[in-house]
Parts: sequence; structure tokens; C-alpha cells
Amino acid sequence: MSGTLYGIGVGPGDPELITLKAHRILTAAKVIAYPAPDTGESFARSIVASYLRPDQTEFPIVIPMRSERFPAQSIYDRAAGEIARYLDDGTDVVVLCEGDPFFYGSFMYLFERLAGHFPVEVVPGISSVMAAGAAVGRPLAARNDLLSVIPGPMETAEMRRQLEAADAVAIIKVGRHFSRIRGLIDELGLTGASAYVERVTLGNERLLPLSEVKDETAPYFSLILIYKGQEGWVLDLPVGTSADDAAEKRAGTGS
Amino acid sequence: MSGTLYGIGVGPGDPELITLKAHRILTAAKVIAYPAPDTGESFARSIVASYLRPDQTEFPIVIPMRSERFPAQSIYDRAAGEIARYLDDGTDVVVLCEGDPFFYGSFMYLFERLAGHFPVEVVPGISSVMAAGAAVGRPLAARNDLLSVIPGPMETAEMRRQLEAADAVAIIKVGRHFSRIRGLIDELGLTGASAYVERVTLGNERLLPLSEVKDETAPYFSLILIYKGQEGWVLDLPVGTSADDAAEKRAGTGS
Repeated sequence: MSGTLYGIGVGPGDPELITLKAHRILTAAKVIAYPAPDTGESFARSIVASYLRPDQTEFPIVIPMRSERFPAQSIYDRAAGEIARYLDDGTDVVVLCEGDPFFYGSFMYLFERLAGHFPVEVVPGISSVMAAGAAVGRPLAARNDLLSVIPGPMETAEMRRQLEAADAVAIIKVGRHFSRIRGLIDELGLTGASAYVERVTLGNERLLPLSEVKDETAPYFSLILIYKGQEGWVLDLPVGTSADDAAEKRAGTGS
Repeated sequence: MSGTLYGIGVGPGDPELITLKAHRILTAAKVIAYPAPDTGESFARSIVASYLRPDQTEFPIVIPMRSERFPAQSIYDRAAGEIARYLDDGTDVVVLCEGDPFFYGSFMYLFERLAGHFPVEVVPGISSVMAAGAAVGRPLAARNDLLSVIPGPMETAEMRRQLEAADAVAIIKVGRHFSRIRGLIDELGLTGASAYVERVTLGNERLLPLSEVKDETAPYFSLILIYKGQEGWVLDLPVGTSADDAAEKRAGTGS
């Protein structure tokens, strides 16, 4: 009997935003793998650090941080080989995935190498897009809205077409594309409908109307939410820093 | 001090797919509200039924089941008024939301009526789209893919444009539009890339290649996942019924 490969979503950053199922599988695990930079802490591991125990075997998949975001396939070949040895021995392996495993996640690199050979179970997670909507305090989409998820590196002309076509948009992986994307949003007259969200649900979370962002670049874990559909939703976001501030502001204004 | 309105996502159906945070807020709640049909059980309540206690006050928001999906605003006016009385008295109210509260959820109707007047906290949930990707065993989107979420009632010409533009698509609220949508997907040559998912993570879940679906209509809680981006993902879905079957099939074929 071979072991099972679990890909579990650990959510956007708040340790409480993992599911009961992910928590159960995690705390029962003997071997836990996760992506890690060559220097510094693994973000996925940091989310669930308080649930880990010393008797669990940890297996960091070290991914050198270079400018490109899509690391060499050889890293995943090697990691898949090492995970396969555990699975062949009948030991389950739990892979921690930021957000949701199948929503733009690097888990796919292990999945495509191992799913044909071993039982795999994927446990969905809270994506940063859902968490950002909750933090900003504006619905993402409703009724018959078209909601598009657009990766920041998308070429400008194509992004313009998508911003024109959709009712609701989440632009993810904004990072170094921030300035270009903001220019496009401005040009389309959508700045007033746009919220900027950085490191959602983490201690250093930032929530701002896009018009209030002074920076010229953004971290990788940032996104922009735009709503231009039929609902009369107003972006009632303080020039503040946290979800708690936003909730207090909304309660206080009595608008 | 007024109470806080909590909108908590309870996920797609599996009681284990709620977050630790939603579980904590739910089990601490004195008053719990949820949408309910005029006859039969509330789906949102059924998901968390095993966590509820007799000492908690339940407040069903009864929504008559008619053919249209957008109930009369007067129902939400009245429900918001009743919830406001609890909040004015300093009592928190927890509203259960299927999936994620701000992802096409009816929580928006209460939110837009109460958020200007009371503190509101939204706890994101696992949407059926993420759960469907996990169940089918194929990533939703990767790298720089454009992912579009399309509501089934969308007019055919617009849906065609979106299916042509996107790399990855989730068509939600398929229901009585199933036959028309399948015709369009066929016409675009995308049937082989399409998975049909019904009642994801529930006991009567159905997962099928779209080509294997014999029905002419689908339940409201059904969706279609399409992938047509750059990744070489194959839809390796058995003509089976459950996520467990799918996982076993994938493991067994050794493809």
C-alpha cells in the first residue's frame, strides 16, 4: 500500500483561515513538505507553524528566489522523486500550499509529476482573492457578474480588453507590474472603483483605495480588486492599514 | 456598544471545509441567521448542523423558492431590521453563508443594509469553484492564465466571447441553462477539456467529463470547469461519481 499525497491549502496568511480538514490532516501528518526560499522562512510553513510538532518530519522544497517566478523544473523533478520514496514506503506526505493548491499554486508541479502514480487528495483553501474581498468590505461579484482573475504580468492590450469586458476583476501577482497596471486602470476611469490589498490577513496587511497608494511598486503578495458591475457598491475604505480599521470606519460613519 | 454582524463562509458542503475561524465564531455565537427555503431544510444550516447547540438562537431568513433567483428586496429589508434589533441590543449575529460570503453570495443583501450602521466582519469561505477543482483533480489556473467565472444565465454571445478569451473558466449556476451551455462548449470544441461537477463535496456529489453527462438540465448547485491554457493538463476523470473514486482511478491507472 503506497502512501497518499495530500496538497492542503493553508489560506492567505491568518493561521485561523485554514479548514478543519486541512488542520486534521496536518496534525496527523508524519511528513510535511513545503516550498521555501533559499534564504529566510517558508511562507506556507509560517502560516501553520503553531500547529507543527517536533516529531513531524519537515521537508522544505528549496526554490531559489530569482527574478522569474517559474523555477526550474529540475527542482520539482528532484522533490517529486524524494516525495515518491516516502509514498512508496507507505508514508503519507502532506504538502503545504499558500492559499488554494489549484488556484495559481506551485502544488501543480508536484501534482503533475505524482498524480498518475500515487493516490492524491487536494484540500481546497481560502484564496487571497476571497480574503481580500472580505478585508476590503465589498462583495467580489454578484448575480450574473462576470468575474475575471487577471495575473499582473498579462500584456497591457489584453489586460485592457479584460478590464473592459468584466464586471468584477481581481488582478493578482501585481508586484513589479504595479505602476503599469495603475496607469491602465486610470486610463479606463476605474481608479475610484479599485481597492489595493497587500499581505491580506497578515499583521502587516495594507488596505487602501488605489487612489491613495503612493508607491511605484508593490510586493508580490498584493492584488487589486475592481468592481464595475450593476450593483451600487461604494468603496468605503479608509486610508487605513488593517481590516479592523476598515470595519470600525464603516461602523462609525453611519453612512 | 452595538453587536457585530458576522458573515461567515461555511464552504461548499463538507462540514470539515469550514475554517477554524468560522468554527470559533459559530460555536461562540448566541444568534445564528441563515437563508432557508419556505419548505425544506436550509443548505447553509445543514452544512454546520453538527456544530450547533440547542442554547443558540436560530433565525431563518425564509426566502420563497421561485423560478427567479433574486428574491424580493422586502425580505431582506425585514431580515435586516430584525438583525439590527439584536445588534442594537449589543448581541452579535452570525450569518451563515454557503461557500464564500462575497463570492456571488446572498450575504451582500444584508451587508449593504447593515454595514453602514454596525461593525461587520466577513470571514471568507471555500467557494464551490475551488472545491470543484480539488475534486476533479485538475488545477484551475496557473502562471499567467486568465481565469473567468461566468454565471450560467449569461447571454450566449457574451459567453462565447468569454470562453474564447479566457484560459480557464468556471461556469457557475449552470442549472436550467445546462443544455444551451453544453451546446456552446461543443461548438467551440471545448467539450474534451470540460468537467461537470454537481453538489461538490456532498454525499451525492457527481464528477463527470462533460461528454459523459446524459442529462438535459442540471441542479442549481452544479458547475463546469474548462481549461484551455498553456499547461498540458489532461482531464483524467473516471466516469464515476465521487472524489474518492477519482483519486483511486488516478492512482490506479499509473498513466
